[in-house]
Amino acid sequence: MMKVSGNGFCSPLVVVVLSPDTKEETVAWLLRRMREKQQDGGTLTGLLMIKDLPKSAELLVDPLGSKVEEKENPNIFLVTASWQRLLTGAEDLGLFKEFNDGSMRSFTFINRHNFKEFHGDGDGFLSMAECQYIIKHELETLRAKDETHVPGYAQAKLYPGKSIIRRLQSKKIMIQMFPLHDKEELKRLSFKWYKKVKTSLQPLDNIRHYFGEGLALYFAFLEYFTMALVPLALLGLLYCQFDWENYDKYVFFAVFNLIWCTVILELWKRCSASLAYHWGTLSRKKVFEEPRPGFHGILGFNPVTGREEPLYPNYKRQLRIYLVSLPFVLLCLYLSLYVMMIYFQMEGWALMLYDKDPTFCTKLFLYIPGIIYAVVIEIMNLIYRYAAEFLTEWENHRLESSYQNHLVLKVLVFNFLNCFASLFYIAFIMQDLVLLRQNLATLLITSQIINQFMEAFLPYWLQRGRNKMMMMEIPLNEQVRMEIHMSTYLGTFDDYLELFLLFGYISLFSSVYPLAAVLVVLNNITEIYSDAFKMCNLYKRPFSDPAANIGIWQLAFEAMSVIAIVTNCTLIGMSPQVRAYFPDSEMHLMLWTVAIEHGLLAFKFIVAFLVPDIPKHIRINLARLDFESMEALKKKKMFEFPVMRRVAGEKE
Amino acid sequence: MMKVSGNGFCSPLVVVVLSPDTKEETVAWLLRRMREKQQDGGTLTGLLMIKDLPKSAELLVDPLGSKVEEKENPNIFLVTASWQRLLTGAEDLGLFKEFNDGSMRSFTFINRHNFKEFHGDGDGFLSMAECQYIIKHELETLRAKDETHVPGYAQAKLYPGKSIIRRLQSKKIMIQMFPLHDKEELKRLSFKWYKKVKTSLQPLDNIRHYFGEGLALYFAFLEYFTMALVPLALLGLLYCQFDWENYDKYVFFAVFNLIWCTVILELWKRCSASLAYHWGTLSRKKVFEEPRPGFHGILGFNPVTGREEPLYPNYKRQLRIYLVSLPFVLLCLYLSLYVMMIYFQMEGWALMLYDKDPTFCTKLFLYIPGIIYAVVIEIMNLIYRYAAEFLTEWENHRLESSYQNHLVLKVLVFNFLNCFASLFYIAFIMQDLVLLRQNLATLLITSQIINQFMEAFLPYWLQRGRNKMMMMEIPLNEQVRMEIHMSTYLGTFDDYLELFLLFGYISLFSSVYPLAAVLVVLNNITEIYSDAFKMCNLYKRPFSDPAANIGIWQLAFEAMSVIAIVTNCTLIGMSPQVRAYFPDSEMHLMLWTVAIEHGLLAFKFIVAFLVPDIPKHIRINLARLDFESMEALKKKKMFEFPVMRRVAGEKE
Repeated sequence: MMKVSGNGFCSPLVVVVLSPDTKEETVAWLLRRMREKQQDGGTLTGLLMIKDLPKSAELLVDPLGSKVEEKENPNIFLVTASWQRLLTGAEDLGLFKEFNDGSMRSFTFINRHNFKEFHGDGDGFLSMAECQYIIKHELETLRAKDETHVPGYAQAKLYPGKSIIRRLQSKKIMIQMFPLHDKEELKRLSFKWYKKVKTSLQPLDNIRHYFGEGLALYFAFLEYFTMALVPLALLGLLYCQFDWENYDKYVFFAVFNLIWCTVILELWKRCSASLAYHWGTLSRKKVFEEPRPGFHGILGFNPVTGREEPLYPNYKRQLRIYLVSLPFVLLCLYLSLYVMMIYFQMEGWALMLYDKDPTFCTKLFLYIPGIIYAVVIEIMNLIYRYAAEFLTEWENHRLESSYQNHLVLKVLVFNFLNCFASLFYIAFIMQDLVLLRQNLATLLITSQIINQFMEAFLPYWLQRGRNKMMMMEIPLNEQVRMEIHMSTYLGTFDDYLELFLLFGYISLFSSVYPLAAVLVVLNNITEIYSDAFKMCNLYKRPFSDPAANIGIWQLAFEAMSVIAIVTNCTLIGMSPQVRAYFPDSEMHLMLWTVAIEHGLLAFKFIVAFLVPDIPKHIRINLARLDFESMEALKKKKMFEFPVMRRVAGEKE
Repeated sequence: MMKVSGNGFCSPLVVVVLSPDTKEETVAWLLRRMREKQQDGGTLTGLLMIKDLPKSAELLVDPLGSKVEEKENPNIFLVTASWQRLLTGAEDLGLFKEFNDGSMRSFTFINRHNFKEFHGDGDGFLSMAECQYIIKHELETLRAKDETHVPGYAQAKLYPGKSIIRRLQSKKIMIQMFPLHDKEELKRLSFKWYKKVKTSLQPLDNIRHYFGEGLALYFAFLEYFTMALVPLALLGLLYCQFDWENYDKYVFFAVFNLIWCTVILELWKRCSASLAYHWGTLSRKKVFEEPRPGFHGILGFNPVTGREEPLYPNYKRQLRIYLVSLPFVLLCLYLSLYVMMIYFQMEGWALMLYDKDPTFCTKLFLYIPGIIYAVVIEIMNLIYRYAAEFLTEWENHRLESSYQNHLVLKVLVFNFLNCFASLFYIAFIMQDLVLLRQNLATLLITSQIINQFMEAFLPYWLQRGRNKMMMMEIPLNEQVRMEIHMSTYLGTFDDYLELFLLFGYISLFSSVYPLAAVLVVLNNITEIYSDAFKMCNLYKRPFSDPAANIGIWQLAFEAMSVIAIVTNCTLIGMSPQVRAYFPDSEMHLMLWTVAIEHGLLAFKFIVAFLVPDIPKHIRINLARLDFESMEALKKKKMFEFPVMRRVAGEKE
């Protein structure tokens, strides 16, 4: 299916689904616009070019199949393009590819034969995920010219330069746009990835080839995190083997934790840069981002592009953020803390009741506060998530990336508090390390069981039938109609959030419960398999996302590791062994703890500053590219010099 | 003197001084190489180009004057170039200039008539400082071709691509290279800058025009810092007026200090970005840096440029840094602390002696420890500075910038300890705030008096005669010979260091002595005048340095402001008012202090993260340039498309 057929056209790549009741004139207009030469609405006076260029260079759109059944949506279209169109699209997007000399360079059509994997016509040079990304980009930059509204829909306003697809999406005329799965490649990938019991690592390059860099980086991080946990887990196992009951000697673990979480995050940055370099996303220049579909404002001129587009004053957004969203988040955080305090109070009552009258009935009472608290937390999480999405939408961010960052921040803070506030309370206010250990174990084990059930077993069971169908040889028409009904993968957000919370349990408190690392390793291994399974079988294929790093999550994990320094230092200061050194003065103990903690914080920042984020050989490669382009520019100028002389001469 | 003469040649710009006993063949060879078309030794096969290009495009070198006296050095040369050569040099260096539409763009010769200040032939378009910088760059990139050594000096080895000037400098054949002063412009500048009593700010644009961006940024920062101190100084004055003896109410000042030092550094970043944008250095791409003159190693191929040059393995440098330099610095720090402890002990003895037998003689004894300590500190500083320079040289850094950073770091840490260790000891170990106040006042006032004397009065007195000469109309020959004997300005290092220490006094401890800000403001105002005077009258003109920010000093000041949060919080925690809230529990007081301090640190980092470093209108301008160049690339590709088609067709 990846193959380009003999006449130079790719097989169907992207499915576009319009609402079933879309007017015919709208469909005809859209198809015409998709098929003709695309011009940047506002900036180029390229009408001349359209005539000059052959039709074959443009997008190829076909309605799905001829035998449309009754009740089925007739407005399903398959979009593809000629290989040449795709290659020039790759150049437009500035995709990086491996050059003959082994370095990564921005692909250019003229230079195409000097790229390593380019054979013959360029068949197989671009991965299917890249082709689909290019087509998505072409569709999204399909701009209105002189249309004032979408034909047939007077309320769907257009203006020169407006992205047509975005308007169709916001008016619910276009209801889906997704890339097709490639069943052969998917079969090969899933076999390599999770179907066979194996000792090797995940096939990251294949994952990247099929799903794109964003998802591949998630799986790389998941794998890296798991590997990094192995030493901790081994230490934990050894410790439990030989010293099972003597948990109080946790100072060693706390020190180890401190170093571990700083080191692994620094190394991950280098590791991620290395992957991104080889995948060509590290030095790729970002393409200018389109406003997100929901963005609205008063029509004006974008100061950067000069194009007409809705503008929304930044101060209004800031007001919404600081006067509404921020207070709301703070209120929710306060509520969450309040609920936690009620829980502790209820638990105290239950314990008191049990102590007074230890019967079976009062013993059952002991579990009730915990259950109620867990349920309330879940409900609060759910409501908060909706509220956060609503608020972030209402803040009216221009770019999808900015929307995502604000949403992640909101959800992160709340989840952090929900998960860790009770542990902090037990550790530092109650100072009850036995209870801390119990709670940590309970939280980890229950969340693991629930996760495995929700993420692996349940979907597998639900999808048994469809799964078989995916593996059968079915005609394209049926495949498309089946994939339309698969659910949409909403991005790596929830997956990263899960890892973030696990990282928190480990780095903040695992010193008092060394087995935590073992549990998390086990969890992560099953997580890899269940995530792989769900990506290959349960969801529509997602568009690839040319990410160069894990983005805001790197920051989140680093913030966690800073907090880990504080908690571990405090735990060390609270330990009986350390207290024994300061028998008469709590004050001195505390001064020392604070001083050492400040030293460690400073040290962490210095290390982060000194360790280069990009490995040396890649830095050299990047510098060489820079240098070469500078030299090329100079050379070019020199050859142009005689011309310049002449011009100068005329002036004299 | 800035004027370009009618035939299109600039007046002399850069003076090159060779050793008086340089062999004649060497001089002849060097002059020939300077006058012929410069090629990048290794990379371009441009011999063909040399013939094609007219002589007039190259550097113009003339020996100084005809009437050479006996005993005078005959090897003094004046270097200049035609305006056209300078303009193409500006393009090579990627200088940014104001475009017709008001934005800053990289200058290109072809586009020259679209730049705002470009009139006629380009006369006056480049400032004299820029011209001199271009000529310096051209001289430094004058590369050996097939010479194996400098003619006449068999021991001065050369290899293809080696910078000739660097070799001549390291072999002491070339003893000086400096830009000439422009007496007329200097007179105008100094009049505007410090000659008239004025209320307006410094003429920063003129300073930049004459001395370049690096120095102008220093003066801008000095001015900014002074202005930022004014509110603090006013508060201090008011406080002293109305509440003179009641210094213990310093909590308010500590809180104010906390906010102040974070806010002014954040604002300075934006201010500096704004200046750098308008001066065209903000987005200028760095030119590839040559190895510094002292750098040595085994000849190999630079992995970035592919040119032959000495290579020195990084691990060896790291070993030298971590096994020799770092232990040495730590030892010096320890020594400095040790000396301080001896001082405190001696002072204790002197006080004891005085208490026992309060005579005039023992009263004199009270001053002896302080004097000895001050002298010892000065001597240690001096020795340490030499040792730091020696060690950093020995670390064998390839780039001047890396050498500078390592030197700054070494000197900074030692000076910080020398200046502040005793204050820390008094404040937090002895907890004697009255003594702290006394010491702070003494330190500030004495250092101010010494500075003013050393920097303003002494040089003025020493240079009275020469100063008059500078203002006289003297022929070029005499001017050059006079400037050769002026001392060389060694860069802004010491000036920034002084500001850094003043900033430290203010941000760390000024809450207990609010008058400190007043003293520093007074000091800074005289500093502006004395620095301006010394730049215009005492030193050779320095080469301009196209800096985009204050570099490593921004980091140093920010590190200081982080330390300021710690000290101010501790001071607040120690204050009697706050202690009154926790009458029975020191422990609680401390917990609260630590918690609030952590909160403030977190807040500071969040603010630094949230406040954009570049003001919005400049970000928009930069984004627009990016967008335009992207669009231009696309357009270009489109026009090339028919050609590509043909090539593709041939393949099919």
